[in-house]
Amino acid sequence: MDFQNYEQLTFARHDNGVLLITMNRPEKYNATDEQMHGEIARVFRDVSDDPETRVAVITGAGKAFSAGGDLAMVERMAGNHERVDHMLREMSDMVYNIVNCEKPIVAAINGVSVGAGTVVGILSDISIMAEDAKLGDGHVKLGVAAGDHAAIIWPLLCGMAKARYYLMTGDMLTGAEAERIGLISKAVPRDEVLDEAMRVAQVMATGAQQAIRLTKRTLNSWVRQAAPIFDQSAAYEMLCFMAPDVVEGYTALREKRAPAFPSAS
Amino acid sequence: MDFQNYEQLTFARHDNGVLLITMNRPEKYNATDEQMHGEIARVFRDVSDDPETRVAVITGAGKAFSAGGDLAMVERMAGNHERVDHMLREMSDMVYNIVNCEKPIVAAINGVSVGAGTVVGILSDISIMAEDAKLGDGHVKLGVAAGDHAAIIWPLLCGMAKARYYLMTGDMLTGAEAERIGLISKAVPRDEVLDEAMRVAQVMATGAQQAIRLTKRTLNSWVRQAAPIFDQSAAYEMLCFMAPDVVEGYTALREKRAPAFPSAS
Amino acid sequence: MDFQNYEQLTFARHDNGVLLITMNRPEKYNATDEQMHGEIARVFRDVSDDPETRVAVITGAGKAFSAGGDLAMVERMAGNHERVDHMLREMSDMVYNIVNCEKPIVAAINGVSVGAGTVVGILSDISIMAEDAKLGDGHVKLGVAAGDHAAIIWPLLCGMAKARYYLMTGDMLTGAEAERIGLISKAVPRDEVLDEAMRVAQVMATGAQQAIRLTKRTLNSWVRQAAPIFDQSAAYEMLCFMAPDVVEGYTALREKRAPAFPSAS
Amino acid sequence: MDFQNYEQLTFARHDNGVLLITMNRPEKYNATDEQMHGEIARVFRDVSDDPETRVAVITGAGKAFSAGGDLAMVERMAGNHERVDHMLREMSDMVYNIVNCEKPIVAAINGVSVGAGTVVGILSDISIMAEDAKLGDGHVKLGVAAGDHAAIIWPLLCGMAKARYYLMTGDMLTGAEAERIGLISKAVPRDEVLDEAMRVAQVMATGAQQAIRLTKRTLNSWVRQAAPIFDQSAAYEMLCFMAPDVVEGYTALREKRAPAFPSAS
Amino acid sequence: MDFQNYEQLTFARHDNGVLLITMNRPEKYNATDEQMHGEIARVFRDVSDDPETRVAVITGAGKAFSAGGDLAMVERMAGNHERVDHMLREMSDMVYNIVNCEKPIVAAINGVSVGAGTVVGILSDISIMAEDAKLGDGHVKLGVAAGDHAAIIWPLLCGMAKARYYLMTGDMLTGAEAERIGLISKAVPRDEVLDEAMRVAQVMATGAQQAIRLTKRTLNSWVRQAAPIFDQSAAYEMLCFMAPDVVEGYTALREKRAPAFPSAS
Amino acid sequence: MDFQNYEQLTFARHDNGVLLITMNRPEKYNATDEQMHGEIARVFRDVSDDPETRVAVITGAGKAFSAGGDLAMVERMAGNHERVDHMLREMSDMVYNIVNCEKPIVAAINGVSVGAGTVVGILSDISIMAEDAKLGDGHVKLGVAAGDHAAIIWPLLCGMAKARYYLMTGDMLTGAEAERIGLISKAVPRDEVLDEAMRVAQVMATGAQQAIRLTKRTLNSWVRQAAPIFDQSAAYEMLCFMAPDVVEGYTALREKRAPAFPSAS
Repeated sequence: MDFQNYEQLTFARHDNGVLLITMNRPEKYNATDEQMHGEIARVFRDVSDDPETRVAVITGAGKAFSAGGDLAMVERMAGNHERVDHMLREMSDMVYNIVNCEKPIVAAINGVSVGAGTVVGILSDISIMAEDAKLGDGHVKLGVAAGDHAAIIWPLLCGMAKARYYLMTGDMLTGAEAERIGLISKAVPRDEVLDEAMRVAQVMATGAQQAIRLTKRTLNSWVRQAAPIFDQSAAYEMLCFMAPDVVEGYTALREKRAPAFPSAS
Repeated sequence: MDFQNYEQLTFARHDNGVLLITMNRPEKYNATDEQMHGEIARVFRDVSDDPETRVAVITGAGKAFSAGGDLAMVERMAGNHERVDHMLREMSDMVYNIVNCEKPIVAAINGVSVGAGTVVGILSDISIMAEDAKLGDGHVKLGVAAGDHAAIIWPLLCGMAKARYYLMTGDMLTGAEAERIGLISKAVPRDEVLDEAMRVAQVMATGAQQAIRLTKRTLNSWVRQAAPIFDQSAAYEMLCFMAPDVVEGYTALREKRAPAFPSAS
Repeated sequence: MDFQNYEQLTFARHDNGVLLITMNRPEKYNATDEQMHGEIARVFRDVSDDPETRVAVITGAGKAFSAGGDLAMVERMAGNHERVDHMLREMSDMVYNIVNCEKPIVAAINGVSVGAGTVVGILSDISIMAEDAKLGDGHVKLGVAAGDHAAIIWPLLCGMAKARYYLMTGDMLTGAEAERIGLISKAVPRDEVLDEAMRVAQVMATGAQQAIRLTKRTLNSWVRQAAPIFDQSAAYEMLCFMAPDVVEGYTALREKRAPAFPSAS
Repeated sequence: MDFQNYEQLTFARHDNGVLLITMNRPEKYNATDEQMHGEIARVFRDVSDDPETRVAVITGAGKAFSAGGDLAMVERMAGNHERVDHMLREMSDMVYNIVNCEKPIVAAINGVSVGAGTVVGILSDISIMAEDAKLGDGHVKLGVAAGDHAAIIWPLLCGMAKARYYLMTGDMLTGAEAERIGLISKAVPRDEVLDEAMRVAQVMATGAQQAIRLTKRTLNSWVRQAAPIFDQSAAYEMLCFMAPDVVEGYTALREKRAPAFPSAS
Repeated sequence: MDFQNYEQLTFARHDNGVLLITMNRPEKYNATDEQMHGEIARVFRDVSDDPETRVAVITGAGKAFSAGGDLAMVERMAGNHERVDHMLREMSDMVYNIVNCEKPIVAAINGVSVGAGTVVGILSDISIMAEDAKLGDGHVKLGVAAGDHAAIIWPLLCGMAKARYYLMTGDMLTGAEAERIGLISKAVPRDEVLDEAMRVAQVMATGAQQAIRLTKRTLNSWVRQAAPIFDQSAAYEMLCFMAPDVVEGYTALREKRAPAFPSAS
Repeated sequence: MDFQNYEQLTFARHDNGVLLITMNRPEKYNATDEQMHGEIARVFRDVSDDPETRVAVITGAGKAFSAGGDLAMVERMAGNHERVDHMLREMSDMVYNIVNCEKPIVAAINGVSVGAGTVVGILSDISIMAEDAKLGDGHVKLGVAAGDHAAIIWPLLCGMAKARYYLMTGDMLTGAEAERIGLISKAVPRDEVLDEAMRVAQVMATGAQQAIRLTKRTLNSWVRQAAPIFDQSAAYEMLCFMAPDVVEGYTALREKRAPAFPSAS
């Protein structure tokens, strides 16, 4: 596999079958527009099929891991049933291609992580994050239900009390706090994030491949069993994209002001 | 909705549709007798139906949040199959009316919380608790299985090891420790509890209503799927109410002495 | 019940029906060979049936709790379908006899815990561990998938991020860290482990027996519902025992060198 | 309870606490407009609370049981996010108020049944249907996903092969065939439907009430566990109401011609 | 294993490891008193452990398979919390020892089957029944909820509509009808029941043992996942044993008259 | 998509986006060797991605639908851990690519169906089968556990009693009987199978695409939730491939004699 039909993801092969994937749109803090979203959605299917890769590591170029959904993409989706229908499918592909990828995935969350970045970061098998970076799921701030990955995995990571708090308020938390509540595997100083991710990747790349892959598969049975909860959340998010709150949501974000949602007036 | 047919709960409407509900029996530390239990069991169905309410906050009058079941009520239930049958239904209403309430609920756990108080506190979407207040589920100390809410939600909050420890021993823990193990959303100094609860309530009351409600609904799918585990625990608790240990349990509590349970003699 | 047909487990009866079980092969750090594995697999069925026992406490003789699977046993199993088939059943008995034991079980994890020791330690209702002792699940280091107990219970204890990290890398963690992430009930100084375990056992042995047993049973419904995930993990582990990595795994462990797994070459 | 605030449902009390409920809009074949839909959605909550009712029987006035959704209501919903949001909640109320109604419900499906009629007919505890009447779930023919009750209960009634066939094609089937595949309890000649329903109702009304109610509750645990699948299906149906196919769907139905769905052109 | 400590069950060894077990109390139509109930509850654990048995066949001596619970035993249980507590455990053992028995079990339902007989008949892997024999679950007729095996397996056998009908009314059905709705594997003329059961037993006894046992185990994962539903139903049945209806239930059955349940007066 | 990299599957495009796929190895009764197995495993991922296809129909060339696994392939797998490991993955791909294919799939089971043919036939959304053709799952006859698709879907189709009977004995059944017990959608005379399949395919191809696809997706949530049961069964089957029974199994099948399994001697 040569990974040549990717534009915003770049690839580097390291020793022992470790593949480093970089979300590479640093001038936009690696925000996900349609192109980036589509590439993330399919890359782990390709990783799973690639005979040369034993472990994948994913990180962000520049200061951010991923700044979330591009507001222009959000605007194009709002009220557009075709784009909403397409997103419903692509969101599902993104989640399940990570969960079902045969090879272990390590996320090196080097900076701020929102939206699709958080999907990848949280669903990866191992998540190494900068202690002082911020991570969150801001769906409700945009005016849409927390679809994507949140409902299928947060309660299994940090418990219901924390999951409800962060997902219903949209608050952000630091890597250090995320580690304390169980949301990620490990928090380290920012400049050690990639090194630590590569170190863990090498541990797995030189380990017993079948044993590690089957251990991943079994653990993810907990996630797969929650499939209808994911589907429910994804459909709710898309329903919200057909309603007026989201228009106020992206407008307020763009204008950097507090939103005045129609539903709360 | 005017909430006039409530005696032990009082209601105050705040800005942006925030409804403050107070368990108001401070001379008894807001302990739940039949009247209080029935009111808590149905109030969140009314909240769900009330068009003026966007977010509910519940707290206790005076020093306590809720001191648990009134011993006189316990005595009336013990060995009485009609009361036991009634409680089996009312306990279920209490749990599911909180879980299924369309609007977010914030618990301001201002002081000690036991029994039905803990049901409300732990099942609420957001739980803000005084760092030094004590919370617990003392069912086994009374001589009955931990019914109510515990089995359906504790393992999803604080994990099995902590859930087993606290539910099988009946030990209490502080708000600070409850936060550390994931049982509640946040612990703050005692005199900041209500302010912080109101702050979070306002964040949600001025947010995108459909987005927040559907996020709550999806997350609670984890709780709803565990429905048979709740039903199992509730039936076990009621079975214990038909056996002799509970008589020794409430007698010892009333006499403030260690119990000598028939089953342990 | 006289527990006389046990060789490597010893038994002592304490007040109020507390039964102290000791894994007693201190010269081997209580490692599990076929005899020890078989005894652990059936002891909690006997405990459940024993009318004199109200609470069981299990600990290790000497410095270790249990050093895991005896390498000679591992070698005898590798590639041997009859032994693998036998282990598939016995592993299942071990897990379910602990989960289904009617009486509470307290693990006093006094020292290092790996393999079958960790099964008992983690599945017990209450786990008290030495702060500085090390615990882990080293299946992948041996070259086999993490079968046994891990997949059925770790995500319910410490969340998926920590479960994946420790199970996919095989890293060990201390008792203090295990408590912080929710994997065990309590961490105490090493010389207080047994005392604290006996104290908690006495609390339960003098409590309301039916109430405590039914509370255990309900909480374990979460574990029982995950039965297919356990079966999946156990079958995967056994599949790995029929492949070449495990041979390199036990050889490298015996030679105290890093393994060079065929699957990673 | 006097059931006076109902317009399209009529009520008659029979011996032993049997309450006969009639969908009474015979000139429209008891089709469900907003009023009827709302009344069906809340009636079983009132039945559950009514101390005089032990068993409810529901049937249709005139020739039909219920002819499904009123096309004018469908037209008002299409593309209208507020009505869609309202329906999402009311559909959920309808399903869960039947499932959670403490008292047994018997459906006397006296004639054609589509849409909300089928929800009530199929979710009722006992369903007695005319052998030659037709029943179906025509959501896909209208251009929307099969929400309502279908996904939560058909696979538990008639198996996946039949459920997929009827729900993905929208084909109708007779009462006799519905009985053969397990979709209903019993098929009898048309003029015996109500008598047989009343006979079974009397059997339960003179039986042991707690025993029958708790048996219902336990069996419905299968349905309650599938809650996320229902929520998923309901959200999908509502998403389709925001897309163009449904407009062609109700137009073609009104004009009694084959639809030419935009998505299939 | 010599099966000598059984009084009411008799054993005969046939070719190829087929063990024929006979419920042998023909003068009472093999009704289950405390002795018989206890023996059925533990026999399949012994079968599972017996190295000489590959397949077990169970049938009834004389005309009946099993006429259900002995009324004298029922009377001794009613209102007696110790016996109720004991039954709660023994009922669970009966169900899980069948489900978890490593070897296949064939039920030869040669005549009427009620109560514990139906537990064995329906939970066995293969059930061969006389076309004209009657089978049923009469719990509600006795005034108690359908505990035992019904809730955990009927919906997986014959679907919810039939399960609700038969379990909520207590009606009996013939072997031919039971086969038609999927409740049993096969219905044959009465005098061929045992021959056909032995034929199928021989097919499995001469087949690939590991393959057949693991196929049983996997299929029973569906049953094991429903464990909380069983526990819920068992607890409900026991709660009813502590209430007045059951007294009227067994009295009316003994006097062969219609019951006048207190709850329906 | 041009489907050119397939050798044993052939493709024909019909009106309205109906794609007819033919298993085309008639001289071997379309038995699955490595090539055919691999092609079936990936074809429905391609169908899902193909923008020109709305509905897929799959059938067999010549007299058979599919005669099951090629014995030479079985022989190459037996005892070979690499092939077994590969099959574990490919079997999973086959099952999930059918279940997750966005478009509806219709199976036209024109003749005998065993092995991978039955996987496709039974997991397809709509299954039309010749009344007199034979279908079965003969895994246990080969000496391996019923992996593949059986455990994840048979209990949801025909109930546990029939599933256990056919899967534990390996017996075949006709299309007419398969329809009666709910295993397939419809049985028709042999020469009408393809016509009826194409008719149903056209109904769906001219229907509302999003509505039909989302209805399929929701119904398959029942299947996806059973993922760990599939994984368990697949791992068990592979374990059996590493044991001696399978060698006797394929040898006896090849020699057309009754097997004498080592495990049953």
